[in-house]
Amino acid sequence: MRSSAEMSDRRAEYAAAVGAPTVIDRWLGARVQAIVSPARVRLELWDGSSPYSLPTRPIGDLVVHDRSTLLGLIVNPDLCFGEAYMSGRLDVRGSLPVIVAELTRLCPLEPTWLDRIKAAVSTANTLRRSRSNVHHHYDLGNAFYERWLDRRMVYTCAYFARQEMSLEEAQHAKLDLVCRKLRLRAGESVIEAGCGWGTLALHMAREYGVRVKAFNISREQIAYARDRAAREGLSSRVEFIDDDYRNASGEFDAFVSVGMLEHVGRRNLASVGAVLQRTLRRDGRGLLHFIGRDVTRPLNTWIRRRIFPGAYTPTLGELTTKVLSPAGMSVIDVENLRLHYAHTLAAWSARFNAATEYVRQTYGDEFHRAWELYLAGSEAAFNTGWLQLFQVVFTPRGSLPPSWTRSDPFDSLRSLGAGPGAASSGCA
Amino acid sequence: MRSSAEMSDRRAEYAAAVGAPTVIDRWLGARVQAIVSPARVRLELWDGSSPYSLPTRPIGDLVVHDRSTLLGLIVNPDLCFGEAYMSGRLDVRGSLPVIVAELTRLCPLEPTWLDRIKAAVSTANTLRRSRSNVHHHYDLGNAFYERWLDRRMVYTCAYFARQEMSLEEAQHAKLDLVCRKLRLRAGESVIEAGCGWGTLALHMAREYGVRVKAFNISREQIAYARDRAAREGLSSRVEFIDDDYRNASGEFDAFVSVGMLEHVGRRNLASVGAVLQRTLRRDGRGLLHFIGRDVTRPLNTWIRRRIFPGAYTPTLGELTTKVLSPAGMSVIDVENLRLHYAHTLAAWSARFNAATEYVRQTYGDEFHRAWELYLAGSEAAFNTGWLQLFQVVFTPRGSLPPSWTRSDPFDSLRSLGAGPGAASSGCA
Repeated sequence: MRSSAEMSDRRAEYAAAVGAPTVIDRWLGARVQAIVSPARVRLELWDGSSPYSLPTRPIGDLVVHDRSTLLGLIVNPDLCFGEAYMSGRLDVRGSLPVIVAELTRLCPLEPTWLDRIKAAVSTANTLRRSRSNVHHHYDLGNAFYERWLDRRMVYTCAYFARQEMSLEEAQHAKLDLVCRKLRLRAGESVIEAGCGWGTLALHMAREYGVRVKAFNISREQIAYARDRAAREGLSSRVEFIDDDYRNASGEFDAFVSVGMLEHVGRRNLASVGAVLQRTLRRDGRGLLHFIGRDVTRPLNTWIRRRIFPGAYTPTLGELTTKVLSPAGMSVIDVENLRLHYAHTLAAWSARFNAATEYVRQTYGDEFHRAWELYLAGSEAAFNTGWLQLFQVVFTPRGSLPPSWTRSDPFDSLRSLGAGPGAASSGCA
Repeated sequence: MRSSAEMSDRRAEYAAAVGAPTVIDRWLGARVQAIVSPARVRLELWDGSSPYSLPTRPIGDLVVHDRSTLLGLIVNPDLCFGEAYMSGRLDVRGSLPVIVAELTRLCPLEPTWLDRIKAAVSTANTLRRSRSNVHHHYDLGNAFYERWLDRRMVYTCAYFARQEMSLEEAQHAKLDLVCRKLRLRAGESVIEAGCGWGTLALHMAREYGVRVKAFNISREQIAYARDRAAREGLSSRVEFIDDDYRNASGEFDAFVSVGMLEHVGRRNLASVGAVLQRTLRRDGRGLLHFIGRDVTRPLNTWIRRRIFPGAYTPTLGELTTKVLSPAGMSVIDVENLRLHYAHTLAAWSARFNAATEYVRQTYGDEFHRAWELYLAGSEAAFNTGWLQLFQVVFTPRGSLPPSWTRSDPFDSLRSLGAGPGAASSGCA
């Protein structure tokens, strides 16, 4: 969301460059307005005019600064909205996540034939390509993420056990929720696929007394995680491995992966199953925490181009058909934390906006705008149900589930509601 | 499981009829023994001989009384085992559920090409065929079911909140678990698809103050349910409708179906989605409780022929792809109660065996043996993980989930652990 002063500057600048809107521009504008009208969003052209009245009071304005953006919003809105916003050819007046949510609801979630083709011919994420994809997003400098993540550096959906929890508390609750769903016991071995800055791996070792092998192909994250392990004296129990999870070997009591499945890509889902089958003991337990969907369709084009190259958000059906069933795993438990991710993203956005000056100065305005839109757009996608957040617990078929009922993990989690420190009391 | 005296009688009878085993019979016997040996089960022929030694102590014996059964166990074990057991041409010495579980583990769960063809060409359950299928199983006389179900007449998986609960307590806990997962509130309207003897419908109306329209195509069950409603004075709030759920109309706050999806059939799964889409309010919630599988394959041939014609146990993938996604529903929560069903079936078997004389006198020995095997075989299938029991909560996409976290339903359920009466305290 831009300030009005900034937008006036930009408008004046663009208006000088492109001249006043022509008849054609106004005609294109009318088309765009017709598209966005159900979202109660008003279109404004670069001369400040907005001749297309809405029947109801608008919730915000789209300010378009040139003709190519008008065309793009008609022809390829998925890509154009993000590209134009990022480059400043499009501004939004009003709450960015609210307006994007309203616009999201206009787009059918059900895939078009083009989406189906795109999904089918998606590129395979080879070992090399995966490294490049991950580098694009996660090696932006740890200092960047320190500015707006919680102090533990958890870059996945938090668990707001109580809605009023702080982000710090909710990330701690999430780490604990994962451990308790897996019923970790002291002395057990855990493999983690995609470990971020090592927060969960260290939490599992520290609070539950397990040994962890944690895989990551982001060099910056691995270095950071190793440093934390050394400082905490946990290096002997947590091994951070700078390698692709597909190269993992050995046998483990538990498998965990939080926020990695989205990066695997549609054509590589089976490789996760292969790793599970190879590394999970017969009496082991596993947990996959990932951004998913209700229907099979590719991720938004702009997000894949600018934010998450190679990413794909699978459905529960794809998870069971392509990952778990072929690996001989049974689903024990699924929890959808969609609104917890919307909450998490709102908290990140607030911190990110507070760090605006730092981000602009370090990475430039275009980068800042791209990330501002990515965070707001993701919040919108979870709020509208266009994206889901699934936590799935599974075991090898026929082995005992981690617990007889669910009530046990919640006995302990409730005590957590009393404050973030309370959780470690019951741990090994 | 037969008594030894009975088996001796039968063996003598058969031996007289078919004569002593020939060289061919012994050769066939060796083939069968080779197949069942990994299950540590010993084969015995109709003359009492058992020349094929097992390396380890057997857990039980299969006593085969004629050559055609030997052949059948080699050529088509899926069908032959049940047919031969039912007709008394095959006996089992030892624990029936344990031995069947061991034999189940020998069968690959992954479907063969034949299974895939069978699944693909499965018959559609038209309105008329569904009625006939349901009549086959559920219209055996309410008195029959009263002999071995709990006193509330719940013929689906119970929820043993504590493992030592009685069946009565566990069925009550299940009814309550379903209501709490749906977050029923007084005054709301509920549609139930497949309501059995009306136990859940009456529980929802009595304990949660909702209005229920409950569909069933078993005439005997509907009559029984209506009678209960009248006796409880709940007829104005619970309407039992003698019709197929596919004919349902109106709009409801909640949709619930416990143990019906298995009877819908693979080719008719989409019809459930169509009903959901038509009848569930935008802010409504739904719950499907059903026997499912990890992989797509037809139900055991014998079970479909003798026990559940037209039945099909879907995977989670089929549920989401064929039922929920097309209906615009999002999965909120999945709980796998597989071992609770094994527990339930063990309790039913114990009661069923106690009613042996009644069942034999009323329905004949063959019927008794068929049902004894069906209950033991189902227990085995849940114990081995060949079958799963899924409770799935869903909502229309983008609407609010029934609760912010799961911990609330369990606050109340724990109080239920104190005794079956405690549950209604918090209800409207």
